[in-house]
Amino acid sequence: MSEMINTGARSKAAQIILAKAGGAAIDKALNAIAAALEKNTVFILEENSKDIRAARDAGISEAMIDRLTLTQNRISGMADGLRQVAAGENPVGKTLWGETRPNGLRIEKVSVPIGVIAVIFEARPNVTADAAAICLKAGNSVILKGGKEAINSNKAIAAVMRSALADSGLPEDCIILIDNISRQAATELMRLNGYVDLLIPRGGAGLIRSVVENATVPVIETGVGNCHVYIDKDADINMAADIVANAKASRVSVCNACESLLIHKDIAEIALIPVGEALKEKNVEIRGDEAVCEILPYAVPATDDDWATEYLDYKISVKTVENIDEAISHIAQYGTGHSEAIITDSYAAAEKFKSEVDAAAVYVNASTRFTDGGEFGFGAEIGISTQKLHARGPLGVEHMVSSKYVISGNGQIR
Amino acid sequence: MSEMINTGARSKAAQIILAKAGGAAIDKALNAIAAALEKNTVFILEENSKDIRAARDAGISEAMIDRLTLTQNRISGMADGLRQVAAGENPVGKTLWGETRPNGLRIEKVSVPIGVIAVIFEARPNVTADAAAICLKAGNSVILKGGKEAINSNKAIAAVMRSALADSGLPEDCIILIDNISRQAATELMRLNGYVDLLIPRGGAGLIRSVVENATVPVIETGVGNCHVYIDKDADINMAADIVANAKASRVSVCNACESLLIHKDIAEIALIPVGEALKEKNVEIRGDEAVCEILPYAVPATDDDWATEYLDYKISVKTVENIDEAISHIAQYGTGHSEAIITDSYAAAEKFKSEVDAAAVYVNASTRFTDGGEFGFGAEIGISTQKLHARGPLGVEHMVSSKYVISGNGQIR
Repeated sequence: MSEMINTGARSKAAQIILAKAGGAAIDKALNAIAAALEKNTVFILEENSKDIRAARDAGISEAMIDRLTLTQNRISGMADGLRQVAAGENPVGKTLWGETRPNGLRIEKVSVPIGVIAVIFEARPNVTADAAAICLKAGNSVILKGGKEAINSNKAIAAVMRSALADSGLPEDCIILIDNISRQAATELMRLNGYVDLLIPRGGAGLIRSVVENATVPVIETGVGNCHVYIDKDADINMAADIVANAKASRVSVCNACESLLIHKDIAEIALIPVGEALKEKNVEIRGDEAVCEILPYAVPATDDDWATEYLDYKISVKTVENIDEAISHIAQYGTGHSEAIITDSYAAAEKFKSEVDAAAVYVNASTRFTDGGEFGFGAEIGISTQKLHARGPLGVEHMVSSKYVISGNGQIR
Repeated sequence: MSEMINTGARSKAAQIILAKAGGAAIDKALNAIAAALEKNTVFILEENSKDIRAARDAGISEAMIDRLTLTQNRISGMADGLRQVAAGENPVGKTLWGETRPNGLRIEKVSVPIGVIAVIFEARPNVTADAAAICLKAGNSVILKGGKEAINSNKAIAAVMRSALADSGLPEDCIILIDNISRQAATELMRLNGYVDLLIPRGGAGLIRSVVENATVPVIETGVGNCHVYIDKDADINMAADIVANAKASRVSVCNACESLLIHKDIAEIALIPVGEALKEKNVEIRGDEAVCEILPYAVPATDDDWATEYLDYKISVKTVENIDEAISHIAQYGTGHSEAIITDSYAAAEKFKSEVDAAAVYVNASTRFTDGGEFGFGAEIGISTQKLHARGPLGVEHMVSSKYVISGNGQIR
């Protein structure tokens, strides 16, 4: 048996015990894990400092090092996240539908754990705890594979969590961290059919592409967000400037940040000045089409590549459009189905945009930055699904379940 | 642009128009397609006879030829199926959830079409009409790829449907049949990311395996059913015999047929006699473990392969188990997550089986043969999902949707 198959088998065996243990036992374990993380803060920070040192030696960017760095506060934040998940509703065992058929068969559809969930993620070590908590809460075991930059931190966090699980009387194999950081191991995990029921990649476009290309297990695609704000001709210009600046620059490294601005040609001349100022104030570079560059002297000409680029940086592409139809077509062509916003005072335009734009989240007069499990009221999230199967948008605990039909008869045959 | 990408682009463009046209237009078109199929019966039967002739020349089995054969009645059946789908509820545009957040953002989750659905299927030409109707009803366009044995029939049915769509004012490209029957074309279709939102394979284990192995677009696995009936020690023996005979032999070629019988050792000696008789009466070959072969002189010894085999034939494997736990473990090891049944009068055993067996449909005292869209009250189905993502069990119109979040604000920023 290969090592990866062995990992899958251990995870599956642990999940069966976890599912039988039920919600109260799981919540107790999540709280125990939270306490253990806080109690082992010094150990985790020590291990984290090894990763930080290695990152500095490798000349990794300060932004990346910031993402990698744990502090006492961040560990407390992880623990609070776990407690919040523990306090949430149990998503398993709900009767979702039921009917008695004419032949007397009683059919009930009930929510059940998905089973074994694999999560492949990059850089941020706090994902280890978040992802594990969300999966466990719904009765799933989790196989985690983090990036090599955070391997010592991830190993430390996983070890603390596993030991707390065991202390709570649950199998420690409900959480398995793959410490083999090779690409080969990642590929094996993506093809672990029969063991892995769901794979969630959480990271950049390269990781997502690799998973889509290589995985044979079911996947929920997450994350890539080439998000647009469209300023309609009937927009409130001040609102537009505030929303664009917020959507672009409140946090540039996240998938719900605006990457591209579309603006109706009839309003471009007057709206671009305040919008451009608001962006300039935040040090955002503007890459505009010809009309935009004429209006804003500090804009640089955009190339075709810009329309398709998720900058995750202080850059934005800006394009004038003839009308709302061109805006919607442009979004259909270049969008990634994440978050799209229109700024308008026109009822007709708002309705048209809501109905015709095909994305996980479609906004009228609000920032794309709200696409987030916490902002939607779902609590912790494990990513933003940009695919149409199973769940779209922020993935919370409630989405980490499947269902089964339970049929009670008294001898029915067909 | 490759031909397959061109097909994807045409399908996607047609879907956008279809979705805008809405439910009433779609229902009208489905009824028009039904009428057109009946009107063109002679043409379809002529084309079908070419396939039948080719099949006979190729020495294909009579069972297969029966599946391939269309008759006036079968075409009327297809038309009735379309009318039934048209008469059903529109699954698109439902508000599934809604909440106003503390910051005043109103978030609504609404059902939307999935987009472009590809269906790869084998042999039976009536799937062409069924699959198209179920996809279209939910505002999706469909790309169909049937088996080479039915290519003339499929082309005829697709041509009639496309022309009826056009007559109804909808794009004929809402239904595209791929008439390139090569494996290469199938593989291209499985990897048409950016165009195909969902791929459903409908066919035998070989097809499903090929799709799981090769597809990079999201897939719903369907169909493979290594289904078990477990006769508990507290079973009603007459009921057990009736259910086993029905589950095994009422139709052997279907995925919800029973392939394996497990029996508690304490009841084996008295129950196997009537169960064996009921199976023998239906000409079912019994492949038993040692204990079974001792009790039933006409049973032949089973090999380890038998436990994992979906016979789709007049054969059944029979194994004695120590207790219900062994039955549940055996099902976890060999089952395909389709349909599993227990026969028991024990409340505790029934509850345990329902809760611990992980399958799309779990039965107490009823035949596995009920796992079917019609029997569950869902109307037409496009297959039985055996995976845990998106939908599990019979896939009807209501499962051919995704959702999106529509957020209405008045200037909110984060």
